[in-house]
Amino acid sequence: MQVSLSLSLSQISLVLCLLSCASLIGARYTPDWASLDSRPLPEWYDEVKFGIFVHWGVFSVPAFGSEWFWWNWRGAHVSDYVQFMIKNYPPGFSYPDFAPDFHAQFFDPDEWADIFEASGAKYVVLTSKHHEGFTNWGSPYSWNWNSVDNGPHRDLVGDLGNAIRKRSLHYGLYNSLYEWFNPIYLSDKEAGFKTQDYVAKKAMPELITLVNRYKPDLIWSDGDWEAPDTYWNSTEFLAWLYNDSPVKDVVVTNDRWGNGCYCKHGGYFNCADKFTPGQLPNHKWEKCQSVDTISWGYRRNMKLTELMDLPSIIKDLVYTVALGGNYLLNVGPTADGVIAPVFEERLRGIGVWLKINGEAIYGTKPWRVQAENATVLAWYTSKNTSTVYAIFTSNPMQNSFKLSMPKTSDSTVVTLLGNPEPLKWAPLKSTGLIILLPDLPFSLAEAWTLKLDGVA
Amino acid sequence: MQVSLSLSLSQISLVLCLLSCASLIGARYTPDWASLDSRPLPEWYDEVKFGIFVHWGVFSVPAFGSEWFWWNWRGAHVSDYVQFMIKNYPPGFSYPDFAPDFHAQFFDPDEWADIFEASGAKYVVLTSKHHEGFTNWGSPYSWNWNSVDNGPHRDLVGDLGNAIRKRSLHYGLYNSLYEWFNPIYLSDKEAGFKTQDYVAKKAMPELITLVNRYKPDLIWSDGDWEAPDTYWNSTEFLAWLYNDSPVKDVVVTNDRWGNGCYCKHGGYFNCADKFTPGQLPNHKWEKCQSVDTISWGYRRNMKLTELMDLPSIIKDLVYTVALGGNYLLNVGPTADGVIAPVFEERLRGIGVWLKINGEAIYGTKPWRVQAENATVLAWYTSKNTSTVYAIFTSNPMQNSFKLSMPKTSDSTVVTLLGNPEPLKWAPLKSTGLIILLPDLPFSLAEAWTLKLDGVA
Amino acid sequence: MQVSLSLSLSQISLVLCLLSCASLIGARYTPDWASLDSRPLPEWYDEVKFGIFVHWGVFSVPAFGSEWFWWNWRGAHVSDYVQFMIKNYPPGFSYPDFAPDFHAQFFDPDEWADIFEASGAKYVVLTSKHHEGFTNWGSPYSWNWNSVDNGPHRDLVGDLGNAIRKRSLHYGLYNSLYEWFNPIYLSDKEAGFKTQDYVAKKAMPELITLVNRYKPDLIWSDGDWEAPDTYWNSTEFLAWLYNDSPVKDVVVTNDRWGNGCYCKHGGYFNCADKFTPGQLPNHKWEKCQSVDTISWGYRRNMKLTELMDLPSIIKDLVYTVALGGNYLLNVGPTADGVIAPVFEERLRGIGVWLKINGEAIYGTKPWRVQAENATVLAWYTSKNTSTVYAIFTSNPMQNSFKLSMPKTSDSTVVTLLGNPEPLKWAPLKSTGLIILLPDLPFSLAEAWTLKLDGVA
Amino acid sequence: MQVSLSLSLSQISLVLCLLSCASLIGARYTPDWASLDSRPLPEWYDEVKFGIFVHWGVFSVPAFGSEWFWWNWRGAHVSDYVQFMIKNYPPGFSYPDFAPDFHAQFFDPDEWADIFEASGAKYVVLTSKHHEGFTNWGSPYSWNWNSVDNGPHRDLVGDLGNAIRKRSLHYGLYNSLYEWFNPIYLSDKEAGFKTQDYVAKKAMPELITLVNRYKPDLIWSDGDWEAPDTYWNSTEFLAWLYNDSPVKDVVVTNDRWGNGCYCKHGGYFNCADKFTPGQLPNHKWEKCQSVDTISWGYRRNMKLTELMDLPSIIKDLVYTVALGGNYLLNVGPTADGVIAPVFEERLRGIGVWLKINGEAIYGTKPWRVQAENATVLAWYTSKNTSTVYAIFTSNPMQNSFKLSMPKTSDSTVVTLLGNPEPLKWAPLKSTGLIILLPDLPFSLAEAWTLKLDGVA
Repeated sequence: MQVSLSLSLSQISLVLCLLSCASLIGARYTPDWASLDSRPLPEWYDEVKFGIFVHWGVFSVPAFGSEWFWWNWRGAHVSDYVQFMIKNYPPGFSYPDFAPDFHAQFFDPDEWADIFEASGAKYVVLTSKHHEGFTNWGSPYSWNWNSVDNGPHRDLVGDLGNAIRKRSLHYGLYNSLYEWFNPIYLSDKEAGFKTQDYVAKKAMPELITLVNRYKPDLIWSDGDWEAPDTYWNSTEFLAWLYNDSPVKDVVVTNDRWGNGCYCKHGGYFNCADKFTPGQLPNHKWEKCQSVDTISWGYRRNMKLTELMDLPSIIKDLVYTVALGGNYLLNVGPTADGVIAPVFEERLRGIGVWLKINGEAIYGTKPWRVQAENATVLAWYTSKNTSTVYAIFTSNPMQNSFKLSMPKTSDSTVVTLLGNPEPLKWAPLKSTGLIILLPDLPFSLAEAWTLKLDGVA
Repeated sequence: MQVSLSLSLSQISLVLCLLSCASLIGARYTPDWASLDSRPLPEWYDEVKFGIFVHWGVFSVPAFGSEWFWWNWRGAHVSDYVQFMIKNYPPGFSYPDFAPDFHAQFFDPDEWADIFEASGAKYVVLTSKHHEGFTNWGSPYSWNWNSVDNGPHRDLVGDLGNAIRKRSLHYGLYNSLYEWFNPIYLSDKEAGFKTQDYVAKKAMPELITLVNRYKPDLIWSDGDWEAPDTYWNSTEFLAWLYNDSPVKDVVVTNDRWGNGCYCKHGGYFNCADKFTPGQLPNHKWEKCQSVDTISWGYRRNMKLTELMDLPSIIKDLVYTVALGGNYLLNVGPTADGVIAPVFEERLRGIGVWLKINGEAIYGTKPWRVQAENATVLAWYTSKNTSTVYAIFTSNPMQNSFKLSMPKTSDSTVVTLLGNPEPLKWAPLKSTGLIILLPDLPFSLAEAWTLKLDGVA
Repeated sequence: MQVSLSLSLSQISLVLCLLSCASLIGARYTPDWASLDSRPLPEWYDEVKFGIFVHWGVFSVPAFGSEWFWWNWRGAHVSDYVQFMIKNYPPGFSYPDFAPDFHAQFFDPDEWADIFEASGAKYVVLTSKHHEGFTNWGSPYSWNWNSVDNGPHRDLVGDLGNAIRKRSLHYGLYNSLYEWFNPIYLSDKEAGFKTQDYVAKKAMPELITLVNRYKPDLIWSDGDWEAPDTYWNSTEFLAWLYNDSPVKDVVVTNDRWGNGCYCKHGGYFNCADKFTPGQLPNHKWEKCQSVDTISWGYRRNMKLTELMDLPSIIKDLVYTVALGGNYLLNVGPTADGVIAPVFEERLRGIGVWLKINGEAIYGTKPWRVQAENATVLAWYTSKNTSTVYAIFTSNPMQNSFKLSMPKTSDSTVVTLLGNPEPLKWAPLKSTGLIILLPDLPFSLAEAWTLKLDGVA
Repeated sequence: MQVSLSLSLSQISLVLCLLSCASLIGARYTPDWASLDSRPLPEWYDEVKFGIFVHWGVFSVPAFGSEWFWWNWRGAHVSDYVQFMIKNYPPGFSYPDFAPDFHAQFFDPDEWADIFEASGAKYVVLTSKHHEGFTNWGSPYSWNWNSVDNGPHRDLVGDLGNAIRKRSLHYGLYNSLYEWFNPIYLSDKEAGFKTQDYVAKKAMPELITLVNRYKPDLIWSDGDWEAPDTYWNSTEFLAWLYNDSPVKDVVVTNDRWGNGCYCKHGGYFNCADKFTPGQLPNHKWEKCQSVDTISWGYRRNMKLTELMDLPSIIKDLVYTVALGGNYLLNVGPTADGVIAPVFEERLRGIGVWLKINGEAIYGTKPWRVQAENATVLAWYTSKNTSTVYAIFTSNPMQNSFKLSMPKTSDSTVVTLLGNPEPLKWAPLKSTGLIILLPDLPFSLAEAWTLKLDGVA
């Protein structure tokens, strides 16, 4: 649709204001990055800090290698995958043949939600559809290639969502824009993305239906990189999402909306998977990380050494929050619908730690300094104007603890989270203070938090 | 699109001519029934008389009840089907779960084509997609629900086509317009067919791709009845098919193009399944009939009494041809890819009969009289102006045979097909003749043909 | 157990008599061939003439090649079988893995028995256990390798037996002595059959349990040839069977009881599979023959040309009976439990023929001459002293029919079975007669019987 | 065999000596408990203290409830099991149908052995056959119901054994005497165990073959309780095992050899599963315990709360060793052949602890006192005459530690295992001592060991 316009100067001003001031005066977003990027991130997201990522799909059936199983086998012909199939399956066995064994027979969404809640996470992001194209809900645009028609015969997205929301956690949905082997996508790709059949017939109608049906608080977009956002119609989608969708006021999105977008456009920034900035970024970001360092999806033959242990996870969480990020920790459930106990153990362990130390995480802001190499390395977060938290993950093995960055005053009070008594401290000559530590509790051997009230 | 026109009288004449004379002067068909119905049926079709219909699909896996298995089980909840599933499959087993067992491991298209050719059939029609929506070719619009991505992992439509054409048989493709459980179709249906999402995103792009890719000589349309042809965009499709498709000169179609179309619009008429007119119709028609009288798809537990035997089939063929129809006889192959020997036996039996009697079938026209109750019931076909065939299916058990309808002349010659010697005959008093029969051969016990040359 | 004896001469005489006269005076058989071979064959067997053989087992699941599938694949490494497995199954798939797919879900013993009865057969022999060792009943000696613990989860031997006996047919059981891959058998074999572990722990306890439980009228022994009867304890078994088993008065056995036994010892003689003598044998025999000429077990990909047609079967039956044999015709049901219609058709066809011609088959004896090349080849059977049947399988294509062997008298009456009227005939000069044939009925195109009463 | 004897008095003495002194002078054991129980336990067993128990079998496929799956489902009809089958499997699905899914495709015996070795265990006991009767080796007496003919198609017993022995660990085999559903066993049972068919044909030949083939260092007998040892021929077997088997000098057995035997006869005592004595027993014993407190076999849906954590396991191990027992800790691998990471984590954790504290475990003897409630509860073990270990599992949370039981001397030296420096200590007034503790290392938070040299 093209309309020719003739505008007076004052009208032009108005238009410009409409565009630039949109977010301030509640006006509508326009489908361009200037407008969309101007939308303030809904507040809940920065406060919650910690979420759980769940990769679940047909890839959970072979549960071998990684959730990129199909691609690695049939796309990249990686030898391990090819050999695995040759050794264990009949010739001609295809990836869709795995779907009937995605039984999810032990899937109890309330059990999952209990574990997630116990971990201290405040949001949960489930793969509604990974690059394989299999939807974990009854997408009308993915007939016979979804969890209602096949395998589990169940609305996984809906059922988990209900359990998550009963516990007042936020619910996000991962959505892959591309589908490795979707023939309509492949045909657009072959045409150099000059045709948009796949976007028109599949990707967008499906994503919009997903949003309308499940009202996610967060859309974790992925699989965008092969084509520009103009192919995906990303700005049109986001304009609709922010202006007219049922979640327009609450929804948070990330930055994977087309080649070149990540770290640049959209809501918060994921940048690359597991991206970790070296210093405080000037835009809200999120680190996604998987307990299984090799895969986001479940692997039947994972080894202990390939898994993050609890101390590493807590260290990673602390680092991320100190640098202003959110931490989205991934677990891959089994095709049977079980969160493996080794994952459950880590999640519950984080929860135990957050029970005491969560005050230094939730609702905090980065401090003016992110870390200092004190007696041992310490990470800072802050709350209000005068409360600072210093979190350290190595046992100093001595009773005194020095911090040089905080500026103390007469009203400064220092406590160790989990310990009722205020600690003795003394100012240091130049700046900072020295603190007398109590015995550190064994039961929280991963990290300890010194809370400093009345510092600057 | 509406365009207002202002035409002179001569222009009107021209337009009228264009509409009515289209088929004569090679002009283009317009997407309306008046124009489309005016297209002459390509000649090959009336000449060949006898074809083989092949119903093959995921329904061949349960191979129980009929090819309407899915609908009878999950749509109509027919008790036999529901019980069959309860007794033999785990709870939650779904129809798509059958697809991996559609192995087709013994499918040898050349073997099939040999059998079809031996039957004397001149065309073969394969279900490219039945109401279940599963395509027997790699339709990009039916991802993971087709024979290349699932089950056989093979282009069944293409492979059979090649074998059929090597033998100079015509190749037709059955295509179901609707798909019982396609959610996009169901959504259009719920909207009273006022939306056409399914037609735009699935039915038409897929059918056009099918035609372009396999260049069928015949399109056997089906599954049209729930919606009018305006929903299906049938006239637009046929206009394209007749004007611009790669098969525009040769393709034949039937009459199932929307509710109300059958027996009325399109190419030849099928009317209802197994429809048999009582007298000579004034439009080319085809009778489709299945050897298994209960099902078009294979049934693992079919009983002999449920199958047509060779004499009934030949009788049916003779009746149909005498009344100007084509006879399309169906067999349902197994999921393994085998034409069951009991079907093969009937097909080869027809071929043996046609070897002798085919002269009275192929390339014939209905005669001025279709049958008469002579010594025994006899059916007529004719060729050129003065050759008439009288086919009888009961053994008269006597040596003389009377026919009252043919008008003999001095040059009249009578033979029994398969017998080298001319037969003795004498004119009857009023009209007709009496013929002296030889011993009828045992080896062709189904029907015999008297050929009368030089009659009127 | 050794006992020292001291006997008087008269006592010795008695003992000798007991041994040698056993069969005459109803005394007990001793476990040696001289005694066992002296047992008269129970009368029913020679009277019934025609039986059905049924090969059913785990081999019906791959249903490829033949019922020797396991051996051909894993024993002889026949390329076709090896390739079939490589192409269609995962590496490591073993023969026992087929068992769960032996579903027999459509098995209706009454349906089978109806077909068998309709064929005119008077006895039915089922494989209770083939060389694969899988028992079609819940053998306690074949735990988890039988039809009750696996696959059908049903007592196939018992269920079919009940249906067969309800129709007053005789019920026989095939039993393979050896089991190709039974490790205990293989260990005896390795020991040159000097150990008898397999016989003691498996073969004999199982066979005795089978007899006690199902009381078969016939034991069709097989799989004996690798070891002598002394290894199998065959004479001990037969002595028990004839003296003490619940079927001692009625049971019939064949001749496969150890290497060297066949055509020599036991009950009636099978000699080799499909053995056909050239002239009248002096011992009751049976020809076993399979409709599928390539296999006794079901083959999913059998071709029509590999199957016997009805005329060949009837010819074979007639030949066999004329030479004093019984005819045991085999069909292999599917793993689903179905007698394929192509088999059903032949069986019912035989029944139709026997309905008219059975008088010349059942209860007959070979005549003094078995055949003569008359007008066409004719086979003789006889009944009482003066009734002779001449059966011919080719249409003589003329009205007169000469037979040179029968000696006519004034009271000689000739009829064509199925035709109510006595036929005109005249004695020939030397010996024999010439008969005036009526029109031969088309509906029985396989063979016709001339009945001659009052001839010698 | 009965032999009448006439003996002189001196001869009688000799015989008595032979019976009673057998074990002392290397004479042969007789098949009675008096003789068999007199055999000294091979020394290695008491020294190793800690072993791994592995329950693996067809039960690992459903992996639901426990390794008693078959019994609970089909024997006891426990509702959870019955419902599980109804909900997830087709009617008629039987337990043997699980066997083909026992793939063991990831089974790497060296990986398992590495984990077991890393745990500090010195022996490993694998279920060679559980009550289901499925043998994890190619038992000729369990044809088609073993891991070579079915499922893994692999000699699991042999392959694991090789890997275990490469690491100089001892290898034991669990063997169930009874088999729940073995029809021959059931028949003996029905006969009140007056017949011994099952023992003669199955149990004993198989067990003897197992011993001869795999030469286990330990036989962990089970499944004995329904029948007396006289039914099982246990004493005959043990006499053979101790006198003539290839492992006669090294093999250790437990006490499950027939109803009434346990805690009374055989080698060491297991008594009941998980039996834990309250005070020092006077016979060598072993506690078997499973990490999964609910099952010995793998459960796909085990929850973290149902698993023992590392501190509980170490506490249990310490308790057991202090009371003179061995500790056999069980893990159930998956049907895929994987030791779940949550188990691996515990096993490696024990190994880390034993690396420092193993000195107080391996090769120790119970001390004169087993425990005292000192500053915190402490458990004693000892070595040589004057070394005593006091192990405590709670953090005393203070620097001084009192022990009242050890009698110190001038040469008494106290150290904390893992800490290089001798500790300061002082004798207490009456008896015992007070020790000055260093900071306890966080990394070993489960238990600490004080070593006291030169005490009495």
